[in-house]
Amino acid sequence: MKFGILFGARSYEHEISIVSAIALKNVLKSEPMFVFCDKFREFYLIEAKDMKANFFSSGNYKKSKKLLLKNGGFFAGGMFGEKKIEADVFINLIHGMDGEDGKMAALLDFYEIRYIGPRLEASAMSYNKELTKLLAVKAGVKVLKYEVLRRGDTSNFALPVILKPVRLGSSIGVSVVKDDSELEYAQDVAFEFDTEVLVEPFIEGVKEYNLAGCKIDGKIKFSIIEEPKKKEFLDYEQKYMSFSSESRAKEADISEALKAKLKESFERIYSCGFDGALIRCDFFVIDDEVYLNEINPNPGSLANYLFDDFEATINALAKNLPRERDIRIDYQFINSITSAKGKL
Amino acid sequence: MKFGILFGARSYEHEISIVSAIALKNVLKSEPMFVFCDKFREFYLIEAKDMKANFFSSGNYKKSKKLLLKNGGFFAGGMFGEKKIEADVFINLIHGMDGEDGKMAALLDFYEIRYIGPRLEASAMSYNKELTKLLAVKAGVKVLKYEVLRRGDTSNFALPVILKPVRLGSSIGVSVVKDDSELEYAQDVAFEFDTEVLVEPFIEGVKEYNLAGCKIDGKIKFSIIEEPKKKEFLDYEQKYMSFSSESRAKEADISEALKAKLKESFERIYSCGFDGALIRCDFFVIDDEVYLNEINPNPGSLANYLFDDFEATINALAKNLPRERDIRIDYQFINSITSAKGKL
Repeated sequence: MKFGILFGARSYEHEISIVSAIALKNVLKSEPMFVFCDKFREFYLIEAKDMKANFFSSGNYKKSKKLLLKNGGFFAGGMFGEKKIEADVFINLIHGMDGEDGKMAALLDFYEIRYIGPRLEASAMSYNKELTKLLAVKAGVKVLKYEVLRRGDTSNFALPVILKPVRLGSSIGVSVVKDDSELEYAQDVAFEFDTEVLVEPFIEGVKEYNLAGCKIDGKIKFSIIEEPKKKEFLDYEQKYMSFSSESRAKEADISEALKAKLKESFERIYSCGFDGALIRCDFFVIDDEVYLNEINPNPGSLANYLFDDFEATINALAKNLPRERDIRIDYQFINSITSAKGKL
Repeated sequence: MKFGILFGARSYEHEISIVSAIALKNVLKSEPMFVFCDKFREFYLIEAKDMKANFFSSGNYKKSKKLLLKNGGFFAGGMFGEKKIEADVFINLIHGMDGEDGKMAALLDFYEIRYIGPRLEASAMSYNKELTKLLAVKAGVKVLKYEVLRRGDTSNFALPVILKPVRLGSSIGVSVVKDDSELEYAQDVAFEFDTEVLVEPFIEGVKEYNLAGCKIDGKIKFSIIEEPKKKEFLDYEQKYMSFSSESRAKEADISEALKAKLKESFERIYSCGFDGALIRCDFFVIDDEVYLNEINPNPGSLANYLFDDFEATINALAKNLPRERDIRIDYQFINSITSAKGKL
């Protein structure tokens, strides 16, 4: 299986995506192709030797081969005509906008390129934190209570609260507010990134568990369950460090009963359209009840550090990708009208 | 304002879209550019004189100029290099898959092409009839009770019921079931088109009203309210006839109070992310209460027959399109890590 790794794009998490791709390169035994999407949404074929963060930040990537996305694949121009980039399956490793909001899924599906990643509908639902709540409720998984504010609205929740832009991954624009005096600034920060802001109660010391997985042959293949390191919440840099460390995470020390509950909740969420993706669900556990915190449909470096057999997992997933419904267009309708009414 | 009309694509409503584009051509005073997407998802520039149904059904469209979708627009190749199709704003007139499921929105946004039509998230929500229900509830608009079945599930609803594939526009795959003996066949038909089927009670003679509109300068510009012709439900051909008739629809004879209620419900739905689109909402009225039946985010020929001043409306809408958030990518994060840790 030859993988292509798609990363970058126009996103607040553009840089995270670069780091994520570099981390994945260091994990994979088989050498993938690297396709970088820059902030102007131009695609480039990056050679493995150039997969270093400063190759991108310096702008040197522009000397790489430019690619064109067309029916069937990414193509490089050349003296002897166009040549398709040889990859059997692409991994959508674009975080945040363009990658997780459904755009990349749409482009790849439209042009019939096979990929690991959430499909359009699942992307749209998990990119928007309010829609994620609706999805969880529909799936029968609990969520914390929440409000959605637009600019000028006031929250009815008692402090402490956590504020999050509705449509961002990572921890960008997120603040914990414990005192009234901090509220206005936290709102301003969150509204920098979206027109809608999600407010939830902030629960000091709440138990958190992360679980990743994907569906293979009709069954969920689960990662280990991780209890992420305790911090008020992970900021941008900490999150990056967590998935680029390249060391295997440790299994959380919890009861088999709780593990089973977390897995059941994961499966309920995954069944709402995530076929073809390897996702990570972040859960809270309060009074032995599982609550969905968020869905990472393209987790950093594909959460490889949570799997004992990551490469085997994605190879199996690559053989289990959903196919678009086959639609026959035969012009029966137009032909019937044309013959009934004369030429249209 | 020079419009480009995008139509066709890989959809069960491919043919409806062709007819829809022809109808729109006959309505518009200013001549638009026509961009056809065929079932192979290749784009063609269609000359106005060729805008006849059998030009497409015969395959003659393949002699038209082929276009390539790239950053900034649709481009035609030629002896003297590439030439961009001159259109200020495209109208997404692709019905069903590719057009209303969010793919076309994604492509146009990704390549920074301005367009009239629902954005990705609004498309994903309105294309899926179950998500439309969730959206309506979130917006505070009533919906009929419903179930979602997968193959093998049995409905708990008393007959008569109406069965609809979850992810299709038009009336394709829809059946009314009044007798147990019809249920199995109706399910088979619906499952031909989707893995999930929506079941609702079928209410004989329910009052139906259609209302279209779009947001211009922060205010909804409404069409007239139409009471569609009574039939059990409109089939494919009847629907086509209804929007290609080119005659103005008649305003429904209802109280001002009910009109106001319908408009308020429309506005609540539209506010859930439909900026940039001209949509039609189809409502039921039961005991003086308004229920959302469905959202048509790209209504047939843009529901022009419901507007007295259609051309002025879409010209104003074209000046009120949402813009994507501007995202600055400055590599600050990578630069800070690189300098702290040495070269990554």
